[in-house]
Amino acid sequence: MKRISDYTIQRLSKYHRSLEILEKRGINTVSSKELAKIEGITPSQIRKDLSFFGSFGKRGVGYNVIELHRKIHSIMGLDQDWNLALIGIGNLGKALIEYHSFVNINFRIRLLVDSNKKKIGTKIGDLTIHPLEKLKSLVKTEKISIAVVTVPSENAQKVINILSEAGIKAVLNFAPTTVIPPDGVFIRSEDTSIQLEALTYYLNSHNV
Amino acid sequence: MKRISDYTIQRLSKYHRSLEILEKRGINTVSSKELAKIEGITPSQIRKDLSFFGSFGKRGVGYNVIELHRKIHSIMGLDQDWNLALIGIGNLGKALIEYHSFVNINFRIRLLVDSNKKKIGTKIGDLTIHPLEKLKSLVKTEKISIAVVTVPSENAQKVINILSEAGIKAVLNFAPTTVIPPDGVFIRSEDTSIQLEALTYYLNSHNV
Repeated sequence: MKRISDYTIQRLSKYHRSLEILEKRGINTVSSKELAKIEGITPSQIRKDLSFFGSFGKRGVGYNVIELHRKIHSIMGLDQDWNLALIGIGNLGKALIEYHSFVNINFRIRLLVDSNKKKIGTKIGDLTIHPLEKLKSLVKTEKISIAVVTVPSENAQKVINILSEAGIKAVLNFAPTTVIPPDGVFIRSEDTSIQLEALTYYLNSHNV
Repeated sequence: MKRISDYTIQRLSKYHRSLEILEKRGINTVSSKELAKIEGITPSQIRKDLSFFGSFGKRGVGYNVIELHRKIHSIMGLDQDWNLALIGIGNLGKALIEYHSFVNINFRIRLLVDSNKKKIGTKIGDLTIHPLEKLKSLVKTEKISIAVVTVPSENAQKVINILSEAGIKAVLNFAPTTVIPPDGVFIRSEDTSIQLEALTYYLNSHNV
């Protein structure tokens, strides 16, 4: 398969959501032009993004909403559940638990890890906080695929290396620092300043 | 000016960072091909993105790193400082303060607001937590341009409406819910599940 850009994957997530909304509204077909309008991009971008994954839609008719939604659902790996480990149970870790940001039908936080001895052994909801040393065995028993890293910046690289040794292949990193992915590990970083810069661009270019 | 997509703006932020790194390494020029390789996109995408803002680079020579960096810096509104208000001082709000995610040369949290009477009047660092009722006057005196909303989902829309009435035009929303932007207000939402879906796509498509 051709190397598909992160931007395509990001857009696929967005098409997936829009199609879900259209499906709930009982809309059966959508043209690339209509979908493009919803997404604020060009129809050719949508056609190009989808072309990586096969042939969709009929010329002059458009896409079957349910079919395209299911297909993207499957491409994104969303027809299975994913167990997450949360590494670093500080304010941000707790906020992620309490916000239920991940706790939808597909993502479940199954393992909490921290290096602070005062926290180890305490519980948040049903989950006990475990020490970093137990990571390797717990990743196996809890069938963890994805680690969410909310440790201080200075510990991020070390923790990600340990995660890699424990067999984790996918990391969502919240630490505001540059980390080098260990071999075979895919890292996405949450980067709030990119969002803030979109706001300052807006304020600056609109003179508001 | 032509309507420029959110994706272009997001990429501009990334070019800005890469150029900063190149500048620090003492590299004087970079071709669109080289920059494209760093960013993982096509050279034509870079040329198209930049074309919205003028004419850059010389054919066969490339872009002057310092010049392009400065220009994007200015386009993004980063040659001025921006004062932020943080609305909702729960775990996430505190995490944002402690992670110093925003506290770079351009972004400063200048105002903390919460509706919880137990929190109002207490301090975090140098900043006192104020009630929502004082928002309108404090936005003016503290010269706030951007509000960061970390309230529970059920309060997000109400709070954003109040922010709009207080004259705020740009909002970074962390509440995991759909909000309708009031007239003239630009909202960006942090959406962790988009990042998680990039990870599940990766795990799914690579069979790891």
